[in-house]
Amino acid sequence: MSVPVRLAQEATIAADDRGLNYGDGLFETLRIHAGQPLWWGAHWQRLSHGARALGIATPSPESVLAACEPLLAQPGDGVLKLLLTRGSGGRGYAPPEFAQPQMILSLHPLPKPFPATGLHLRWCTLRLGIQPLLAGLKHCNRLEHVLARAECSDPAIHEGLLCDAHGAPTCATAANLFVLRGGNWLTPLLDRAGVAGICRQWLLAQGIGRECRLTREHVDDADAIFLCNAVRGILPVARLDARRFEPHPEVRRIVRLLARAEPAFAAMESA
Amino acid sequence: MSVPVRLAQEATIAADDRGLNYGDGLFETLRIHAGQPLWWGAHWQRLSHGARALGIATPSPESVLAACEPLLAQPGDGVLKLLLTRGSGGRGYAPPEFAQPQMILSLHPLPKPFPATGLHLRWCTLRLGIQPLLAGLKHCNRLEHVLARAECSDPAIHEGLLCDAHGAPTCATAANLFVLRGGNWLTPLLDRAGVAGICRQWLLAQGIGRECRLTREHVDDADAIFLCNAVRGILPVARLDARRFEPHPEVRRIVRLLARAEPAFAAMESA
Repeated sequence: MSVPVRLAQEATIAADDRGLNYGDGLFETLRIHAGQPLWWGAHWQRLSHGARALGIATPSPESVLAACEPLLAQPGDGVLKLLLTRGSGGRGYAPPEFAQPQMILSLHPLPKPFPATGLHLRWCTLRLGIQPLLAGLKHCNRLEHVLARAECSDPAIHEGLLCDAHGAPTCATAANLFVLRGGNWLTPLLDRAGVAGICRQWLLAQGIGRECRLTREHVDDADAIFLCNAVRGILPVARLDARRFEPHPEVRRIVRLLARAEPAFAAMESA
Repeated sequence: MSVPVRLAQEATIAADDRGLNYGDGLFETLRIHAGQPLWWGAHWQRLSHGARALGIATPSPESVLAACEPLLAQPGDGVLKLLLTRGSGGRGYAPPEFAQPQMILSLHPLPKPFPATGLHLRWCTLRLGIQPLLAGLKHCNRLEHVLARAECSDPAIHEGLLCDAHGAPTCATAANLFVLRGGNWLTPLLDRAGVAGICRQWLLAQGIGRECRLTREHVDDADAIFLCNAVRGILPVARLDARRFEPHPEVRRIVRLLARAEPAFAAMESA
C-alpha cells in the first residue's frame, strides 16, 4: 500500500481520521542537527515495529526522507516529528479492512534547555496502566502522560517520574530513567508500560545500563540518576523531591561519551 | 471560553490538534430518533464530567444543539457523534495554558442490526490496563479497544468481552455487560477501566442491576447475560465461547421495559 507523506502545513486531516478519534497512530520525534535527523535508523525501526504491532502500513523510509528535505534545510538544530495514523475509518473500533494510513511531518524548535546544574524531579501521583501489548511503543494514546504533566505547574520542577500500576518506576513523562547503584547503571524494563526511547537504546547498545525491575527505593537511594531522550540527550538530575544528588563523575563520563559520538549534544559536555 | 462547534464536513483539523497527536479528547455517540438525540441530558453530563477531569472547556449545550439541527433534520434514525478535543498545542504533553478546544459533530447511519436470536460473544485475550483517573470516561485513548476488536475477524462473532489487568470482567469492546445470577442483575464496577455507558446508567436508574466486581466464572455460569449501549439498546446474548444461553424471560422483560420508555428501541421488543 502507498502511504502519502505530507508536511503539516499542507496536510488536511479528515474529521474521521482514527488518529483524531481514537489516538490510533504512532509518532517519532527526532533531533535535527547539521541538516540531518539524528538516529534516523533507530527511529524508523521503532516506528516500523509499532506499525506492525498495530497493523498499520508505513510509507517507504526513502519517501519520508525525501519529504523531509525542506524541513531539514532550515538553519540550526530543531525537532522533526513524524506522525503516522491509521487514516480515515468508520465509527467503530474495528480497524477498517482498507484504511489509507496518513503520515504527517512537522518541524519544531528545540525545547528550552534545562539548567546545566541538573533537573529537579518529582514523583507523579498517577500510575501508568499496565498494557504489555502497547508497552514500549510510541503510540498516540498519551492521556496518562498529559495528566501526569498537568499534576504540577511549579516551574521549578522540570520533570516527573512515573511508576506503573504495580508501583515499579518506569520513566519520566517525556524521558527514560537511568539509576546508578553500586557502580552499575540500571534502567526500568519497559514490558508493562512506558516508551522504549532511542537515546536509552543507544546507551544500552554502548553497554551502559542493564534493564531490570526497579523499586521506588532503588531510585530514591541511588548514587546518581539521569534522564535521557532523543531530543535532549543526557539530562543529569540534581534533585528528586527532597533528595539531592551531587554531580557524579559517572554521569559526566556518559555525557562526554554521547557528546563525542553525537556532536548535536557537544554543548552539554561543556555545560 | 468560547468553544467553536463545527460540522465534520466543514471542519478543518489542524495537524497539531492534541486529539490527533495524543488522543487528548472525549466523544459521545447518541442515537437519533424522531429528529431528537436520545438521552441528551445524560450524554451531555458524561461529556462535561470527562471534560472537567481532563481540564478541557466545553461549549454551551445550547450551541451544540443548535449546530446539530441540520443533522437531526435527516429522515430516519441515525447516530450523532460529538468529538471534543483540547485543540492545538505545542509538541509536549503539558496541556497548553490557553488551548482552544474544538467540537466536531458528525452524523452516521445506524449500525447493521445484530440477529434477533442473540449475540455470539468471545472472551478477548487483551486485558484492559487499570487507570482509575480515566476509568468511566469516554475519552479518545482507544487503542486497547481497537486491538481487542482486531483479535477476531470471524463474522459469526458479534462482540468480545474484556477483563481488566486483574482479570475482572469489565465490558464488551463497545457495550456494557449485565449478568443475571440468582435472580439479581449485576454489572461490572467501572472504577478501574471501561466506559460508563448511558444505557447502563438508565438501567441502574430503573433499579435494574447492581454494580459489583465480577469474576470470569460469574459471567460464564450466569443464568442470562446481555450487553447494552446507547445506540443499540439491550442486546440479548445467545452464546459466549462454548456456553449457550437460552432466551430468558428476565431479558425479555428488560427489552420490553426499555422499548416502552424509549420508542427508538420498540422494534427490538417485537424481535
